[in-house]
Amino acid sequence: MNRYFLEISYKGTNYAGFQIQQNAVTVQAEVEKALSVFFRHKVALTGSSRTDTGVHALQNYFHFDIDMPLSEEIVYNLNALLPSDIAVSSLRAVDAHAHCRFDAVSRKYRYRIYNRKNPFLQGLAYYYPYTLDVPLMEEAAKTIMAYTDFTAFAKRNSQVKTHRCVIRESRWVREKECLSYEVKANRFLRGMVRGLTGTMLQVGRGKLGIQEFIGIIEGKDASKTDFSVPGHGLYLEEVLFEERDIE
Amino acid sequence: MNRYFLEISYKGTNYAGFQIQQNAVTVQAEVEKALSVFFRHKVALTGSSRTDTGVHALQNYFHFDIDMPLSEEIVYNLNALLPSDIAVSSLRAVDAHAHCRFDAVSRKYRYRIYNRKNPFLQGLAYYYPYTLDVPLMEEAAKTIMAYTDFTAFAKRNSQVKTHRCVIRESRWVREKECLSYEVKANRFLRGMVRGLTGTMLQVGRGKLGIQEFIGIIEGKDASKTDFSVPGHGLYLEEVLFEERDIE
Repeated sequence: MNRYFLEISYKGTNYAGFQIQQNAVTVQAEVEKALSVFFRHKVALTGSSRTDTGVHALQNYFHFDIDMPLSEEIVYNLNALLPSDIAVSSLRAVDAHAHCRFDAVSRKYRYRIYNRKNPFLQGLAYYYPYTLDVPLMEEAAKTIMAYTDFTAFAKRNSQVKTHRCVIRESRWVREKECLSYEVKANRFLRGMVRGLTGTMLQVGRGKLGIQEFIGIIEGKDASKTDFSVPGHGLYLEEVLFEERDIE
Repeated sequence: MNRYFLEISYKGTNYAGFQIQQNAVTVQAEVEKALSVFFRHKVALTGSSRTDTGVHALQNYFHFDIDMPLSEEIVYNLNALLPSDIAVSSLRAVDAHAHCRFDAVSRKYRYRIYNRKNPFLQGLAYYYPYTLDVPLMEEAAKTIMAYTDFTAFAKRNSQVKTHRCVIRESRWVREKECLSYEVKANRFLRGMVRGLTGTMLQVGRGKLGIQEFIGIIEGKDASKTDFSVPGHGLYLEEVLFEERDIE
């Protein structure tokens, strides 16, 4: 058997998230369908990083096994079979034990907001027309680097055993028409980036002080966390499999 | 009476163009509706630069007359009334004789293409997955600066009296994931930017030589012009009302 990593990007607008599920259009279902049409038999995929409804990805991965060697040309064929909002970027042959979820050493997410109506950002960033104290939000973003237990930013009924995450980057960045929160960690909990973003926006609006923000982290209680920012502002930007700066 | 210039931007995807017409959703109809709701009586708009179905604008203008002085605050109210794909950028009080079409001294358009599948560019640029000789296309773009009669790039049954246009800029530019044709002129004929772009793409693919391209311009016959590139790659980027470098 040969194992391959399939690198993809997608606009999440029309999908009920990444992972396959009953009675819903998902990114995984679309890619499995394209592969199954191409190979004329069912091909099971293992996904790297789950994303929720409406969330976009500039980079995400699947792996699959197949009993014949493949060439990069299938990228072209798969793109022709896939809808226009999912693209395959590359195909890479990997070791039979490589695993696109377990071997990922870090992920990077970006949450984009904008505060001036812009016809080209609808569905691609969160319209948030409020005055924000950005230096205070930057302080909050730096603060989280000192912590590793993110229980306060984990959505309930998630089944993970540990809430430990090692944050490698956490900052607010001004882009052209947007303000973005960039965060990189070895792993993320369900809802974590949206919880961090939403709660820092409360800091930026003056509704929550930095001490209260720290209190939420240290209290390990998600009931004060603001998870309300929508999925369409969120991008999975990078999944890294090897890194020099790993702890 | 007070005259105002209303500066807007829009994503053209859902519109049958700019100018009002029977039984079609147009940008002008949406803006007139918003103004009429706001003022509780019909407000007639004069548009600056018509754009076709699916064509986007980063900047375009309307003017209208009203019997009371207005403040910039109405920008906020109009944006709340308008759909998310049309935004008002500014309101400016002008002289009673100012005219947003006749007083415009130049317009700038951009046509964007991309050649690698990208989920985020669908509807916002034209997917054109062919190998292009860009230096040859740049030569063609420069060539047109020497001409002022663009009959060959005017769609038939347009009712203009003259096909004279003074080109101020004409170049191909590489952006991040796109290749763009940028063109600025005192005025444009119907279909002109798409005709220029489509015909230069034929040059880039080696289907048309530079001499043949010149022959098309000089022949003043639109039958050899390629108008087939779709509206969704086209952006009206700028409408200028005063300019130092005017001829």
